[in-house]
Amino acid sequence: ILNIDYKTSHKRITLPGLINISAFVPHIAEQNSNDFAQVTKASLAAGFTTINVLPIGSTESLQDARTIAIAHSNGKCNAHCDYSLSVAVTESNSLQLTKVVPDAASSFIPFTNLQGATIPKMATISTHFSTWPLLSPIVTDAKGTDLASVLLLANLYDRAVHVTSVSTKEDIVLIALSKEKGLKVTCDVAVYALFLNTNEIQNSEDLLPTPADQVALWEHLDVIDCFTVGTLPYRLAQALNKNNSASTGIEDTIPLLTNAINEGKLTLDDIQKRLYTNPQKIFDIPEQPDTYVEVEIDRKVVIAQKEENWSPFIGKTLVGAVSRVVLRGDTVFLDGGLFSSGNNGKDISTLTHVIAKTPAVKESLSVKE
Amino acid sequence: ILNIDYKTSHKRITLPGLINISAFVPHIAEQNSNDFAQVTKASLAAGFTTINVLPIGSTESLQDARTIAIAHSNGKCNAHCDYSLSVAVTESNSLQLTKVVPDAASSFIPFTNLQGATIPKMATISTHFSTWPLLSPIVTDAKGTDLASVLLLANLYDRAVHVTSVSTKEDIVLIALSKEKGLKVTCDVAVYALFLNTNEIQNSEDLLPTPADQVALWEHLDVIDCFTVGTLPYRLAQALNKNNSASTGIEDTIPLLTNAINEGKLTLDDIQKRLYTNPQKIFDIPEQPDTYVEVEIDRKVVIAQKEENWSPFIGKTLVGAVSRVVLRGDTVFLDGGLFSSGNNGKDISTLTHVIAKTPAVKESLSVKE
Ligand SMILES: [Zn+2]
Ligand SMILES: [Zn+2]
Ligand SMILES: [Zn+2]
Ligand SMILES: [Zn+2]
Ligand SMILES: [Zn+2]
Ligand SMILES: [Zn+2]
Ligand SMILES: [Zn+2]
Ligand SMILES: [Zn+2]
Repeated sequence: ILNIDYKTSHKRITLPGLINISAFVPHIAEQNSNDFAQVTKASLAAGFTTINVLPIGSTESLQDARTIAIAHSNGKCNAHCDYSLSVAVTESNSLQLTKVVPDAASSFIPFTNLQGATIPKMATISTHFSTWPLLSPIVTDAKGTDLASVLLLANLYDRAVHVTSVSTKEDIVLIALSKEKGLKVTCDVAVYALFLNTNEIQNSEDLLPTPADQVALWEHLDVIDCFTVGTLPYRLAQALNKNNSASTGIEDTIPLLTNAINEGKLTLDDIQKRLYTNPQKIFDIPEQPDTYVEVEIDRKVVIAQKEENWSPFIGKTLVGAVSRVVLRGDTVFLDGGLFSSGNNGKDISTLTHVIAKTPAVKESLSVKE
Repeated sequence: ILNIDYKTSHKRITLPGLINISAFVPHIAEQNSNDFAQVTKASLAAGFTTINVLPIGSTESLQDARTIAIAHSNGKCNAHCDYSLSVAVTESNSLQLTKVVPDAASSFIPFTNLQGATIPKMATISTHFSTWPLLSPIVTDAKGTDLASVLLLANLYDRAVHVTSVSTKEDIVLIALSKEKGLKVTCDVAVYALFLNTNEIQNSEDLLPTPADQVALWEHLDVIDCFTVGTLPYRLAQALNKNNSASTGIEDTIPLLTNAINEGKLTLDDIQKRLYTNPQKIFDIPEQPDTYVEVEIDRKVVIAQKEENWSPFIGKTLVGAVSRVVLRGDTVFLDGGLFSSGNNGKDISTLTHVIAKTPAVKESLSVKE
């Protein structure tokens, strides 16, 4: 997996096309929004060839046929990488959710940053666990007591649940205990939460982990199934009144993680597992043929000030950078230049439906797993 | 079990000495309070020969060695029936709780009506589940999401938990599901909650079940392990600005339940299970030799206005009444007259300690069970 690039004297390694299972598209349900293009473009350049789009945007959410149709139409012919949509479970839409099964690859039980959604009650979550197709993942951003209650219900209904954006000691310990006990739970941590804490950034109390929380996250690295971008970079910039956009924080991902390899905190395998192997498995993401990412893991990069995106790492030198991205045989990114036509990204939400719509196949597959 | 009382022409049945596992003693931690005498006296006359005292009083709670010592001293030589004490788990006392193990028969995780206690966080509850002696029960009044998180933690630590005063459809359904799934959970419902709802009593929204909740309680009768008096009669009187005292509501218990037999809603076995068999088993309550209660199940009683205690059933005719209570061979109550010396009630908290203090016995006992 490790190749020495003699020409440039940089160590170059090859990874599969990376997967961001919590991609934030701010204007997700706004007609003619360009956010889809912007997020998928930044994702591709950062090594992500597939993203799962969170259903909660900055001012609206995907929670019914209408909003999902807008998101699909925004994504159509306008995506640089593959993507799937998710639908938010709310107190008011739970009975209509079966109608949108064919249009969403997963469902999301939201507890924070609700944009027009309402926190679902326990009875609603129960109904959801018992009616949402078995092969379609259920994701939640529940924390604390809410997380505990979602985990209990998942257990009672024998359903798997994925917890996104874990950021406290309490939550990662609860997930660790639940995994030990055999509960079907997986989780991700936003990359920013691994490298920034409330001591380092003023007024970030509701967003970043405390130093103690952050220590607990690193101590429970084996419990963390995936790394994600999440909403954290966007919301942090917003909270600090800095410039943000649909692409905020995406390109910092690989430099931050490879820099941690350089510091002895992570291995290459840690990264590949959490940005490809586990996301692929948990979300049943179809393989992309002839798709890979080359990373120069010893190249020093200085995070630069950009017009539309603030980064808390501006001016900082990190070690490691994406040098090439190949999607289905085509080099779409090379040494800083993007060569993507902008319409090669496929909507893969549908691929999941085909399976989920066929109960016979579903049953045998879930037995096999 | 059913005897015809020819002399009076009333049908008389015999029950074991009844157990109220959630007895409310308002001034539980107030020096020289007479509440202990009053509660145990009313309990005995109502057929209860054993009570578990809730650690949360009307203005204070049992949460440390000092408050527990006061309660013990108030009970000493001052109790008409047997009793055991419980200790509240709070955010601040969890590390000191092992010290009071010898003085409390059970521990209580409080979420409502906290009187000087603080709601314990999940980490505190976790610690409690992993450190509290296995043979000593853990009780909670958690509701909704809090209940779900307590149930999850109990499951993760493989501990049994008893939920007291269940009053909503959401909670009884959650407990039903948890039992089906094999979780070690038991529960009780306050007798008042079976016969009063928010439609019948104005301004009782935070205390009584709604009619729909009440229907769900009756529909899940098989899920309800115990009936209790609980804090409901006292708090209901308080909320409605009626007279209340340490004995409020206790004597209504048997008339309400036997009246439900008369109406075809309950069987005698339903009552015996929930006021004796299950409480005895769940709380490991020592058997009282030569102790029983005679109930005339066809005698009409009109609930009378009393000086210190309001009852929502004043003026109502119910069928069934306690006619005789025999405690350890002595008739202590007969046809309305109390013949109790007032110091025959034993503190049985200690009986549990003896077992809980001996790990070897504890292990073999729990295997046996
Ligand atoms: Zn290079
Ligand atoms: Zn918008
Ligand atoms: Zn689609
Ligand atoms: Zn741990
Ligand atoms: Zn009689
Ligand atoms: Zn008091
Ligand atoms: Zn004692
Ligand atoms: Zn049910």
